Amino acid sequence: MPSYSPITPEILSEIKGAVGSDAVIQTTEKLCEFEKDAGEDACLPELVVEATSPRQVSALLRLANRYSFPVTPRGLGTGLAGGAIPLFGGVVLSLAKMNRILSIEKDNLIAVVEPGVITLDLQNAVRRENLFYPPDPASLDTCSIGGNAATNAGGPSCVKYGTTREYVLGLEAVLPSGEIVEAGVRTRKGVVGYDLRHLLLGSEGTLGVITKLILKLIPHPQTITTLVAFFPKLTSAMDAVTAMLVRGHVPCAVEFLDDRCLEITGDLLPFEEARLAKAMLIIETDGVQRVIEEEMETIGEICMEQGAVNVVMAPDSLKRARIWEIRREVSLRIEDRFPLYLHEDVVVPIGKIADLVGCLRGFEGEYGIKIYSFGHAGDGNIHVNITAEDRKCRDRAEEGIVNLLKKVLSMGGTISGEHGIGIAKKTVPTDGALCGKHPHSKGNQTSLRSPADTEPRENI
Amino acid sequence: MPSYSPITPEILSEIKGAVGSDAVIQTTEKLCEFEKDAGEDACLPELVVEATSPRQVSALLRLANRYSFPVTPRGLGTGLAGGAIPLFGGVVLSLAKMNRILSIEKDNLIAVVEPGVITLDLQNAVRRENLFYPPDPASLDTCSIGGNAATNAGGPSCVKYGTTREYVLGLEAVLPSGEIVEAGVRTRKGVVGYDLRHLLLGSEGTLGVITKLILKLIPHPQTITTLVAFFPKLTSAMDAVTAMLVRGHVPCAVEFLDDRCLEITGDLLPFEEARLAKAMLIIETDGVQRVIEEEMETIGEICMEQGAVNVVMAPDSLKRARIWEIRREVSLRIEDRFPLYLHEDVVVPIGKIADLVGCLRGFEGEYGIKIYSFGHAGDGNIHVNITAEDRKCRDRAEEGIVNLLKKVLSMGGTISGEHGIGIAKKTVPTDGALCGKHPHSKGNQTSLRSPADTEPRENI
Repeated sequence: MPSYSPITPEILSEIKGAVGSDAVIQTTEKLCEFEKDAGEDACLPELVVEATSPRQVSALLRLANRYSFPVTPRGLGTGLAGGAIPLFGGVVLSLAKMNRILSIEKDNLIAVVEPGVITLDLQNAVRRENLFYPPDPASLDTCSIGGNAATNAGGPSCVKYGTTREYVLGLEAVLPSGEIVEAGVRTRKGVVGYDLRHLLLGSEGTLGVITKLILKLIPHPQTITTLVAFFPKLTSAMDAVTAMLVRGHVPCAVEFLDDRCLEITGDLLPFEEARLAKAMLIIETDGVQRVIEEEMETIGEICMEQGAVNVVMAPDSLKRARIWEIRREVSLRIEDRFPLYLHEDVVVPIGKIADLVGCLRGFEGEYGIKIYSFGHAGDGNIHVNITAEDRKCRDRAEEGIVNLLKKVLSMGGTISGEHGIGIAKKTVPTDGALCGKHPHSKGNQTSLRSPADTEPRENI
Repeated sequence: MPSYSPITPEILSEIKGAVGSDAVIQTTEKLCEFEKDAGEDACLPELVVEATSPRQVSALLRLANRYSFPVTPRGLGTGLAGGAIPLFGGVVLSLAKMNRILSIEKDNLIAVVEPGVITLDLQNAVRRENLFYPPDPASLDTCSIGGNAATNAGGPSCVKYGTTREYVLGLEAVLPSGEIVEAGVRTRKGVVGYDLRHLLLGSEGTLGVITKLILKLIPHPQTITTLVAFFPKLTSAMDAVTAMLVRGHVPCAVEFLDDRCLEITGDLLPFEEARLAKAMLIIETDGVQRVIEEEMETIGEICMEQGAVNVVMAPDSLKRARIWEIRREVSLRIEDRFPLYLHEDVVVPIGKIADLVGCLRGFEGEYGIKIYSFGHAGDGNIHVNITAEDRKCRDRAEEGIVNLLKKVLSMGGTISGEHGIGIAKKTVPTDGALCGKHPHSKGNQTSLRSPADTEPRENI
C-alpha cells in the first residue's frame, strides 16, 4: 500500500484556502454519505470536497501532489465496483454539484454538460428538442454523466447505439498535476492528434478528473416496440439472438433472463410460460412505426424457428413497462432473498454466451453459491449475480468469481462490460490479457506512462 | 531536425540478419516506388523493409533504437498528408505484404485482418457473408485497412456509420521499443483498462506499427437509394442538410459540390441544372427498400422547402454510378486543369459549413488562388481544393492555407477530417487548440509522454 500523508490541520487549512470553506465537508455524519458506492465495501474519507468549478479541482490536486494525500473522485456513487471508495482515506472529490447542462446546440447536434448531470435529466432535456442521448445504464435516473464517462457505462441500448464512449466528442479534464486540459472536438468528425479523449474515458478517474463533456446527440427515434419470447432452453434463446443479428436485425435492446430469474419474478408476468420457461428474451426495436412492427414479426418468427414456446408482442407502453419491471425487479428480489449478493458483470463474444451461462451451474456446486444470470444478450454482456444463504460464504464465493473471470478471459471475453474495475477487480489474474488489466497495472503498458505511474503517490 | 544515423553496411547486414534478405529492398529504381504518397512531396528512403510478420517489425524497431536510424511505416501509400514519406531517409517499413484476411467470424460479427488488406477487398469478402464494413475512404479500392486505422480514415458513410475508429475492436501493434502489444477486445463491448486501442488509432504510426486488427462488422443493409438536389445558393443546400438531420433523417451519405465543381463536371449529368446551379447535394439512404423510398421523398421535400431548384431521384444503380462519377471526376479534372493543386481537408461544426465555404472567395482574391470545395456536408468535413495557374504561386497558396486553417480552428473546427496530419500540417499554429496539434507536438500533452517523446531519435 502506498504511503500517504493524513490530512493534518495545516493541510486542511490550505485546502480550505484553495477551494473555499463552503466546499469542504468535515462532519463524520456527513462524511458517512461518501464512504461507499452502491456495492458492498466502505471506507470513511477524512474529508470531502464538493467542487463547483475546474479551478477548485485543479487547486485540490496541486495540494494533493504537494502534501501526498490521496484524492478519490466521485460522481453520484451509483457504481458497483468500488471505484469511488476512498480506500486510502484522504479526500473524496465530489463532482455532484457540477451538474449544469451548459448548452444544447440543436443545429450542431451536441450538448455541453458538467459531469454531475444525472443521465436521465440530460435524456429528458434533449428529448424536448426531439434529440436523443442513447446511453442507458440501469441506474440512469440516479447516476451521473461524468461517472458514465469515467467507466464507459452502457445499458440495453448498447447493442444498437454503443456505450458512453461513442457519445463523448470532447471533454475538459484536470490532470493529477492540476493542469486543466481539453481533449477531443466539438465537431461530428475529429481524427487529428493523439486520442487523449478516449484515454481519459473509461480510466475511472485514474488519469484525470473530467470537468466538462461535449456530447454527441442523434435524432430521437419516432417510436419503439417490444417483444418477449420464452424458451425451453437458454441455448435456444442465444441461438435466436445470433440468428437475429446475423440476419440483419439490430434491435435497440436484446435482454435475457435465465430460469432462476424467471422463478423469482415470473409472477409479475401475465403468462404461465414465464414461470415454466428456462429463458426469456426481451427484444426492442426503434425507428419508424410501420417498419419496426414488420421487423418485430420477423424477429418473432426467428425466435419460434429457434424453438421459442411463446412470443408475445408488447406494442403499448403499459405492457412495455410491465416487462421492464421484471428486469428491474430481479435484482431487488435477489437482494431481499439472500444475505450475500455479489454483482458480477462480464462480456464474452456473442457466440459464446450460451457456453458461459451453461457452465455456471458447475460453479454453483463447486463453491456453494446460487447464480442468477441476466443481461445484454445482444452484445455478450452478462450480469452474473452470485448469491449465498450465509454471508460467511463470501470467501468461497469470491474464489468462485476469480475462476469465473478466468473462464471469461479464456473465452476471449473481458472482466467487465459496464461496472468497471474499481477496487473490485484489481487483483484478477489475467494471464497477460490487456483487456483484464486494472488501470493501475503496468503490464503491456510499459510504453505509455500514466500520471499514476509518474506520480506513484497520487491516488487519482 | 533530429540527428539520425545513416544505414551503414554494418547496420544493413544487421537488418538483413534480423528480417531476412528477402524482405529488404535496396535498388534505387525500386526505392523510388516508396519515396512519396499520393500528395506532392517526396523523399527517397535508404532502404525498404517489406514485413510479413510482427516479429520482423519488432526486430527492425529494436535495431532502429540501437542504431538510431529513422523508420517510417507505410501502408499502401494513398495518403495525401505525407505521413508515409521518409522525411529523414532511413527505412520505409512497408506493411503491404501483410495483407491476409485471417478470419471472418459470422457468429461474433467480427473480422480479423492484417494491416495490408485493401479496404474494398475486405468489404467484398464480408459482403459475401451478408455483412458490412462501412468505412469508405475515396481511395477504398487502393488503400489499406492499416492505413485507414492509422489515420482514422472515413468517407461519405461516416455521417451514419462513423470513421474507422468505430470499427476497430482490438489490435496488435509493435511499439517503438520493439515490444509487441495487444489492445482492445474481441467482444462487441469492452470497457475495461486504459483505452490504448484508441490511442494507437489515428496516431499515424507515431506510437507504434499496427500489425493486426480485430474489426467489428454489422449486418449488410438490404438496399440503398440516391437523390441529387440542385440549389441556387450554397447556403440553402447547407440549410437543407441541417434541417434533414435535425428532423431525424440520418442518410448514409450527404455530399455537396460547390458551383466551381459543377462548372467542370456538370456536363457529366443529364440535367441542365447541373451547370447552372450554385450547389448540388448527393444524398443516400440505406435500409429496407420501402422505408428508404418514403424517407427519400421526405428528404426531397425538405430540399425543396429550403429552395432547391430541382430534386432528382436515382433509384437504380446505373444512375447512382453516374452521380458518383461526378464526385470522383472533380479531383481528376482539377488535376488536369491546374499546374498547382493542393488538397485540403477540414472539419467545422455542421452549423458552420456555409459560413466557412462562404468566406473561401475572400481567400481566392487575397492569395491569387482558385478554390473548389466539395465533401461530406453531413458531418462538416469539407475538402477544400486549392489551385493556381502557376506552380510559382505555391508559397502564397500555402500562406492562404495556414490562414484558412486558423479560420477553421476559430470556428471550433479541426484541421483534418480524413487525411491526417502527416508532414503537411505539422507547422500549423493552432493557438493551443488540442484538436489542431500534430501528434509530435507536446503542448497539452505534457502529462502523457509518447514514445516519440521518450525516444526523441525514433521516427516511428
